[in-house]
Amino acid sequence: MYKCLEISDILLLKDDERENIKVHGMVHNIRDMGDFAFIVLRKSEGFLQCVYDKMNKLPLKESAVIIEGKAYKEERAVNGIEIKINKMTVLSSPKEEIPFNISKLNINMAIENEMTVRPAVLRNETKRNIFKIEACIVKAFREYLYKNKFTEIFTPKITSSGAEGGANIFKLEYFGKKACLAQSPQFYKQTLIPVYERVFEIGPVFRAEKHNTTRHLNEYISVDFEMGFINSFYDIINMETEMIKSAFDYLNENCFDIIKKLNIKIPKIDSIPTVKFREAKEMVAKKYSRKIKEPYDLEPEEEKLIGELFIEEYGSDFVFITHYPSKKRPFYAMDDPEDNRYTLTFDLLFRGMEVTTGGQRIHDYDTQVEKMKRKFLQPEEFESYLMLHKYGAPPHGGLGLGLERFMLKLIDAANIRQTSMFPRDTTRLVP
Amino acid sequence: MYKCLEISDILLLKDDERENIKVHGMVHNIRDMGDFAFIVLRKSEGFLQCVYDKMNKLPLKESAVIIEGKAYKEERAVNGIEIKINKMTVLSSPKEEIPFNISKLNINMAIENEMTVRPAVLRNETKRNIFKIEACIVKAFREYLYKNKFTEIFTPKITSSGAEGGANIFKLEYFGKKACLAQSPQFYKQTLIPVYERVFEIGPVFRAEKHNTTRHLNEYISVDFEMGFINSFYDIINMETEMIKSAFDYLNENCFDIIKKLNIKIPKIDSIPTVKFREAKEMVAKKYSRKIKEPYDLEPEEEKLIGELFIEEYGSDFVFITHYPSKKRPFYAMDDPEDNRYTLTFDLLFRGMEVTTGGQRIHDYDTQVEKMKRKFLQPEEFESYLMLHKYGAPPHGGLGLGLERFMLKLIDAANIRQTSMFPRDTTRLVP
Repeated sequence: MYKCLEISDILLLKDDERENIKVHGMVHNIRDMGDFAFIVLRKSEGFLQCVYDKMNKLPLKESAVIIEGKAYKEERAVNGIEIKINKMTVLSSPKEEIPFNISKLNINMAIENEMTVRPAVLRNETKRNIFKIEACIVKAFREYLYKNKFTEIFTPKITSSGAEGGANIFKLEYFGKKACLAQSPQFYKQTLIPVYERVFEIGPVFRAEKHNTTRHLNEYISVDFEMGFINSFYDIINMETEMIKSAFDYLNENCFDIIKKLNIKIPKIDSIPTVKFREAKEMVAKKYSRKIKEPYDLEPEEEKLIGELFIEEYGSDFVFITHYPSKKRPFYAMDDPEDNRYTLTFDLLFRGMEVTTGGQRIHDYDTQVEKMKRKFLQPEEFESYLMLHKYGAPPHGGLGLGLERFMLKLIDAANIRQTSMFPRDTTRLVP
Repeated sequence: MYKCLEISDILLLKDDERENIKVHGMVHNIRDMGDFAFIVLRKSEGFLQCVYDKMNKLPLKESAVIIEGKAYKEERAVNGIEIKINKMTVLSSPKEEIPFNISKLNINMAIENEMTVRPAVLRNETKRNIFKIEACIVKAFREYLYKNKFTEIFTPKITSSGAEGGANIFKLEYFGKKACLAQSPQFYKQTLIPVYERVFEIGPVFRAEKHNTTRHLNEYISVDFEMGFINSFYDIINMETEMIKSAFDYLNENCFDIIKKLNIKIPKIDSIPTVKFREAKEMVAKKYSRKIKEPYDLEPEEEKLIGELFIEEYGSDFVFITHYPSKKRPFYAMDDPEDNRYTLTFDLLFRGMEVTTGGQRIHDYDTQVEKMKRKFLQPEEFESYLMLHKYGAPPHGGLGLGLERFMLKLIDAANIRQTSMFPRDTTRLVP
């Protein structure tokens, strides 16, 4: 490698080391000032302002260049540092100019157009920063889970049957057999509970939902964890609360500049309120003078109102809704022993949108088989999965957090396509 | 949560704190000694030996239990610590006993049978340890990549076309369109080079290869990284060398017990030798008196012999084979300017097996379009991908490392199914 410096390296240099430095980067923007030009480089760590004498030929935007020059303090520049260019070597030049201005703060394109030119759009600072934040959140989640003795697992995405059942399954031909794309690592993470006690996986899941909305993707990243030896599902709720807190702490400590630029309001969390499904519905019906149409389901509008209510009345951006109706939860959800029309499960709402579904699972073999039958499922079709229960499992539970939705609410974007680099919806497969 | 201790917590207790402790775990094994019984608990961190008075009823193996008792030093026990049980609470019991002995060191089953009962088999200590090592390697890889300023990315697995082309593609119906499962994140990671300069992704890839061998899987975990502003592909080789070194250092520092139990011989690496494809073939032909049948391809047998040769003559478990023939490399591989029948690419062999493929990519638009045409591909079909080249890209390259193969050679397993928790081959979709 050329001995090229990153921004953080330059900031650490002593005065006498700043005389003759080398940096590389993409020419993000050029501002012609008459006698000289500002050249802004896009680098791994961010953006770097350079000053170039106009005696020289200006490079094309989006050229890859190596710059030699002198670094000095300049308060008006990003990072408080500027490079006076002595020499510029162009490593490569674009064939064509990007047909829109990526150096603006906001790229105002119709979402469909934006997604078509996504490879170029992602070079924009705002877009790029969104996925820097995402990478940091994932890093922080993992660090938290490692610290709490979770073992990372990798489970197959091509499976013989969907975990949640239903119609929302992508099917494929697999060497003459019928296969599905995994809707979640549910069966596998449960299977590994007696092996490792606590496991996690952060990876793609696939839902063939026909909804083409601002909050649905057909492929998304699920942050899944599962933990054994729980006392109740509140242990899972507490684990998630602390995981999210630790991610926000990480962002506050490490991504201050980006948070400011994206205008992210990071919620302050002490504890997250919980409310029972039934009660949440009643609270919303009362406060907003609505009728309860469907007592066993939450409408998206109700979800939003519950979120608003808890922001207004409890000052909390998050709320756990607990005890969902059995009818609406999968066969592996543990029923509430106090009222088996409901389950020991929960959703987490973040600013009025469901970002997590979780709960305690059935660990007893007979109970699980009985509930499968009650749901008109054939236990014989779940032989591998039922080895978990048959051969012994501790009380356990877990959750799945949708990373793009979590990001959507965090950065307050209008469309979930903004928080997926290359979103998959019912009409889009490219890029 | 019950205030239950992990093994590392117990080891840190002061003498007076050991009197009355609480631990939970799965009953892994019971050894009846007449007056008393040894009960071995399987826990998140490992195994813990307990002593139980036979006046009490013994639990079933694979019960989930909470134990209260006294911890004391016992050199003959694993971890040097033993628990005298005062009280045992059984949280759950299995419906049936596992029909083979999982507490043996080695489970000797035919691979097909073993895979069918994989959910139970993974509770075996040896099996469990394999994937503990895997999780640690992935953690170490990520830490190395973070340190070297790589940004983590998540790219779609449902795509419109395969990166490598060819017939080895799983196809699926996607809302009335034809879609494929990603064979690699190749196009996406390259697309993100001008955005972040260095990116990585560790996730599933899919290959519909019909080979049903001990070294092929149809779904596997690929450790992919891609880096911009390289001087040559030797920068990638050096980055990988250091990444592997850092993972081995991590294992030596953090997994000493497991390494010993699995009898893993961790290679010592200073630098890894490189040899040109042509020269490697000639060396093997000479040393083992073989004829070169196919000058533009490596047979698996040749690969094995190159590996052996470098172990014997250079004392190296690893060797980079460089400059593969253009015919055998994808259209995005950069040709060697000194001889365009060959490319600036490499494979890494680990103990005679290919575990990585990488190289420098074409970054210039015209060069890429010209090579596509030479390979009888239609540039119009790659419009999104070619935005990378059209709008400007620095010199760059990267690689993909097959995690299961890397593990296979590290633990010296006979079959790659041993290094995938739930392997996918041409006949297996369950569990």
